Amino acid sequence: MTASIITIGDEILVGQTVDTNSAFIARQLHAIGIKIREIISISDTEKHIKEAVDKAIQLDQFIFVTGGLGPTNDDITKKVLTNYFDDELVMYPEILSRIESFFAQFKKPFLEVNKLQALLPKNARIIENHEGTASGMWFKKNGVNVLSMPGVPYEMEGIMNQFIEIAQEEYGVGNFYHNTRLIAGIGESQLADILKDWENENRNKGITVSYLPSIGTLKLRLTGLLDQKDWIDSQLNILNELYPKFVVGSEFDTLETVIGEHLVMQNKTLGTVESCTGGALAKKIVALPGASAFFEGAIVTYSNKLKTKLVDVPAAIIAEFGAVSENVVRIMAENGKEKLDTDYTISISGVAGPSGGTVDKPVGMVWVAIACPDKTYTKCFNFGKNRARNIESTSIAALNFLRLILIGHYEDVTDTDRI
Amino acid sequence: MTASIITIGDEILVGQTVDTNSAFIARQLHAIGIKIREIISISDTEKHIKEAVDKAIQLDQFIFVTGGLGPTNDDITKKVLTNYFDDELVMYPEILSRIESFFAQFKKPFLEVNKLQALLPKNARIIENHEGTASGMWFKKNGVNVLSMPGVPYEMEGIMNQFIEIAQEEYGVGNFYHNTRLIAGIGESQLADILKDWENENRNKGITVSYLPSIGTLKLRLTGLLDQKDWIDSQLNILNELYPKFVVGSEFDTLETVIGEHLVMQNKTLGTVESCTGGALAKKIVALPGASAFFEGAIVTYSNKLKTKLVDVPAAIIAEFGAVSENVVRIMAENGKEKLDTDYTISISGVAGPSGGTVDKPVGMVWVAIACPDKTYTKCFNFGKNRARNIESTSIAALNFLRLILIGHYEDVTDTDRI
Repeated sequence: MTASIITIGDEILVGQTVDTNSAFIARQLHAIGIKIREIISISDTEKHIKEAVDKAIQLDQFIFVTGGLGPTNDDITKKVLTNYFDDELVMYPEILSRIESFFAQFKKPFLEVNKLQALLPKNARIIENHEGTASGMWFKKNGVNVLSMPGVPYEMEGIMNQFIEIAQEEYGVGNFYHNTRLIAGIGESQLADILKDWENENRNKGITVSYLPSIGTLKLRLTGLLDQKDWIDSQLNILNELYPKFVVGSEFDTLETVIGEHLVMQNKTLGTVESCTGGALAKKIVALPGASAFFEGAIVTYSNKLKTKLVDVPAAIIAEFGAVSENVVRIMAENGKEKLDTDYTISISGVAGPSGGTVDKPVGMVWVAIACPDKTYTKCFNFGKNRARNIESTSIAALNFLRLILIGHYEDVTDTDRI
Repeated sequence: MTASIITIGDEILVGQTVDTNSAFIARQLHAIGIKIREIISISDTEKHIKEAVDKAIQLDQFIFVTGGLGPTNDDITKKVLTNYFDDELVMYPEILSRIESFFAQFKKPFLEVNKLQALLPKNARIIENHEGTASGMWFKKNGVNVLSMPGVPYEMEGIMNQFIEIAQEEYGVGNFYHNTRLIAGIGESQLADILKDWENENRNKGITVSYLPSIGTLKLRLTGLLDQKDWIDSQLNILNELYPKFVVGSEFDTLETVIGEHLVMQNKTLGTVESCTGGALAKKIVALPGASAFFEGAIVTYSNKLKTKLVDVPAAIIAEFGAVSENVVRIMAENGKEKLDTDYTISISGVAGPSGGTVDKPVGMVWVAIACPDKTYTKCFNFGKNRARNIESTSIAALNFLRLILIGHYEDVTDTDRI
């Protein structure tokens, strides 16, 4: 049983939109054992849509189409698919009244063009969109299922979730198994080197070993058959035992969730004092629902003036050592801990770039300090030349620094591998 | 002249990675007039790679392949493409020494497996990777160009930028023209309604009108032939004149850049005091290189305790009106302005969700205040139920609120359209 995803819209082909929908759909299908054969992005012309559906319908049992269902004239997916499946558009009164009340709820004018969103194919199964006006349309033909959804991510997600529920009931789940470990503090090639024998042993058993790197962390995934579940789990547990400093958690963990669990368990609180990251670290922590159980807040001292005014870094210290220095981050963390009234406070000061670097303090150099209940740790990291990447790398490295302190491995803090 | 993008890797097909590379590549190509016919994501098996290249080579003049060039065993792209083009792998000594010095620079152990990255196809044009160890490989055959690049975004970007420079010199630019306006404060369907006649006039001239919505903003793009440039530009300038409150800027503007320009011009400074957004607004502003010209810093008072401790919101006021209230955000903004010593300060307090909502204050309700040199403005917004979306919507709405104040249209601040 395979599936394919067809995303429709020039905005993806000209690069104005990043296709995040496909990853969401793929994750949902993967979880119920439906394998994606291919993801394809095409322009919103009748010819391309027909060609893509024609091809997929030969190879897959499920085809997911996103985009082109908006109220404007450049949206043609509904018309093309309705024709393709020899269906006809009819008015669905219950959908119309739902759309009307949707507009009323948000006090928006209800326009003639919005009414057209209730014109839907007569023989398709309609999946309601609780977040917008374009309904999901589930066409079936010769055992192949084609689900057309709007391209707006949160609208698509709501429809996809309903589809998954129905599909699980009607089609059951798949027959393979995978499990994952989240890794931090070591790069892909170094990890592959220390795991060489372990990896070969798994490959010899027919297990797929995948390294999935992202900034500052990577995921190591084993995939096999359902009856290899125990083996796969035990192989990953071996890593937990051998390399606790590298293994952060499992598939759905992040550095934030793991740190949160540690702090909540110890009934401790956290805050940040940030310069070059401008609040990115605090934002990452607050993105976690329930962060209020351990996170108090942050002070973003982006200017030197505020480093002095808000966390009492003496101007003379900044003048002598520079804003990007061990002395300054140490004071930021320790005074920040008082001001924020927390048990742990992470402070950050660095040269995010693209300009502002010197020979001694190049772009990408970042000092991080962590004031703990009994001690303050400091560490200098060196990242690259890209501003956005430096901000993200710094946030991740600071979180992993804190994690290592919390699990008693602070001596193992290394520069985040960027190779 | 068309192009296609082939991304290789199971991580995309199982949804563990969002494909951001294709958008980058598409943008670069669009800018030099090369049209993308199709973007396709496939698994890293020899069969799928060959099939995809086979098809693209019939239809396109440029094929961009990303992924599968890492040092680990699951990376097979180099081998498959080298075979496909009847080439052979040879050691490139100058690449080897570059990789060695790369590892030395970051003080990483240089492993045997890393050496293999200098084994490259003899007849391909090698494009150096200044950010990593996997080189770009440019194969040519019968007038078709295939460029294989690593999947790590910043490595791919460096190689792609070099390709664009070479391609521009060797192939020149394309023959169509597009221009864009960034819009905020009005939804897609409402905008399409007020622009109905304008849109028809453009369509009748053969101009493509595209609406590209994202959270809180949308892009309106006109695309035509090169000789329609003056017409397209003048049509968009009409929008600037008629709807200054909706038109934020042009293609590469963001709310942050536009606000930054206004503030720098007026020699004014900005800060934020954030609760439910947890620093997301500050982070967005600091992401802008040169933000230090107008941005001082932020105070993230995530807990109520810190609202009192850091910006002097009386505990009695929080108890009486709640943390999510006009009274509280007003004090946060006005006191924050003093603490941060800024001319403008944006404060935010809301119910981000997923839990914590009440009948009076449902999830998605957010109060925003902006303390200006002479006055404080406040506004209540209502977003949806999704935490990440609420945080992003709030940041965008707050920025647009400030923009309208700065351009003298504060009376036009409306709830951000979510339809």
